[in-house]
Amino acid sequence: MTGTGSSDRATRYGERLEVPDLAPWLASRATVREFDTEATISESEVRELVDAGRKAPTSGTTQMYSFVWVRDQSVREQIHDLCDRGTVQIEEASHFLVVCIDLRRIEHLLTHRNREFQLAPTMGVLEGSIDASLAAMGIMVAAESRGYGVCPIGNILNNLGAIASTLDLPSGVLPLYGLCIGVPKHGEATENAPRVPLDAVLHEDGYEDPSTELLEECYRSMNAMYGESVYGDSTREWQETLERYWGPEGFMNRRERTLLDALRQQGFFAARGIDERADENTTQP
Amino acid sequence: MTGTGSSDRATRYGERLEVPDLAPWLASRATVREFDTEATISESEVRELVDAGRKAPTSGTTQMYSFVWVRDQSVREQIHDLCDRGTVQIEEASHFLVVCIDLRRIEHLLTHRNREFQLAPTMGVLEGSIDASLAAMGIMVAAESRGYGVCPIGNILNNLGAIASTLDLPSGVLPLYGLCIGVPKHGEATENAPRVPLDAVLHEDGYEDPSTELLEECYRSMNAMYGESVYGDSTREWQETLERYWGPEGFMNRRERTLLDALRQQGFFAARGIDERADENTTQP
Repeated sequence: MTGTGSSDRATRYGERLEVPDLAPWLASRATVREFDTEATISESEVRELVDAGRKAPTSGTTQMYSFVWVRDQSVREQIHDLCDRGTVQIEEASHFLVVCIDLRRIEHLLTHRNREFQLAPTMGVLEGSIDASLAAMGIMVAAESRGYGVCPIGNILNNLGAIASTLDLPSGVLPLYGLCIGVPKHGEATENAPRVPLDAVLHEDGYEDPSTELLEECYRSMNAMYGESVYGDSTREWQETLERYWGPEGFMNRRERTLLDALRQQGFFAARGIDERADENTTQP
Repeated sequence: MTGTGSSDRATRYGERLEVPDLAPWLASRATVREFDTEATISESEVRELVDAGRKAPTSGTTQMYSFVWVRDQSVREQIHDLCDRGTVQIEEASHFLVVCIDLRRIEHLLTHRNREFQLAPTMGVLEGSIDASLAAMGIMVAAESRGYGVCPIGNILNNLGAIASTLDLPSGVLPLYGLCIGVPKHGEATENAPRVPLDAVLHEDGYEDPSTELLEECYRSMNAMYGESVYGDSTREWQETLERYWGPEGFMNRRERTLLDALRQQGFFAARGIDERADENTTQP
């Protein structure tokens, strides 16, 4: 916070590289849903991409995340099966990572220095998902700058506990979503990502509920490119997806129970600490 | 998922711009802690940066976030006070945004189309924080590409309910962290971000607990540039921060209660839906 040593930092760590204005490029990005299954990306590149992404901000330098790089094709197939809906990208992309909250490493680090760790489960979920996602977005940006495409897989939340068990994840580690990285089948992602108008998302000097006109405009802008762009189905409209996610019978409500069970299985509700093995916890519902 | 219409997408939406390999640039990034208080960034630029960032992936196109752009300097001062620890960047940066989970807009969108919304609180917190953070990282990358610096403010979690009230945020909206955007006082962020070794974070074909050697290496790499780089204090070591965050008396444990209270205040535990006003909920602990 003080200026100590600031003036010579440039000479110590070197000047930062120059890049062009990335706003227009970022504004043109889109998730890739079809990968070239013949294409390969080297393992050293995957390490470079992850290394670049994790320089994203992290709460108090604590780095509450891990990436599990799943290379065994049969494990990828199992995870695809457990996702319950067509996310064939898990099998078809060149690489598949699972983005995880990781409080376990923090506990190990503190114990190693004879200090005590105490779990705060809700904060752990919140800060861990923030930390992990900031880093994951960095990985995606790095991958896309190399011409690769990315596809996050949120459907792992449909069967979270089973996926954690398939990956043999210990207590303190919670999977959040998958991250497919590969070469786009059609050369690049050109569909762009449909989004509601900026005014629905950016509130100036306070929070304002959307007017009827703005709600209509949200549907217009989403449906203009929605069905075919996202699902290859021009008849599909956005309200169906919103209801599928947030309606009374939607994914989010079904996943709520799955998530709470997975949190318990992975030790997030243990009385103190996360040192029990995940598989021991499953016998104590 | 099908190939319908894919072949002519490039002509419909145009080819994506080219950028250089961003991995080395991202790997050199760092949070800026000192801003030039005389510098200005135009309001239209802020809108461009937010617009670029929110093309980040979002779960099922639902966009469960909002950004509250706080321009009133006295409100910035109030938030700085409520953060409880020195985060003077809130006042000194050119712009200050509050990154929020927003389930309220989803409810409005569904209701507008005569469909029902039903809250799934834990999923809302998890998916909302993921969505918001992917977008926030996009904003940061866009800002940094223009030579600006960013500083996320996690300390709003120290007094979350009061900050939500200060911003008059309604039910269904939960602040997560602040985002300062400004011109770095020393020209650029040159400190780089200290991180544990990649091997502690990237697990290949399974999850492996860190060995004693790797734990030692984590401390070595963090402490090599930690104190002065992050706090301008060369005597400060990383284990102190880890304990301040995750020890029994740490921030995370103190914030756990604050977070649960704020979630209740913001309607996340309402029996169904989030339609009560936040200020009504506070009377029902």
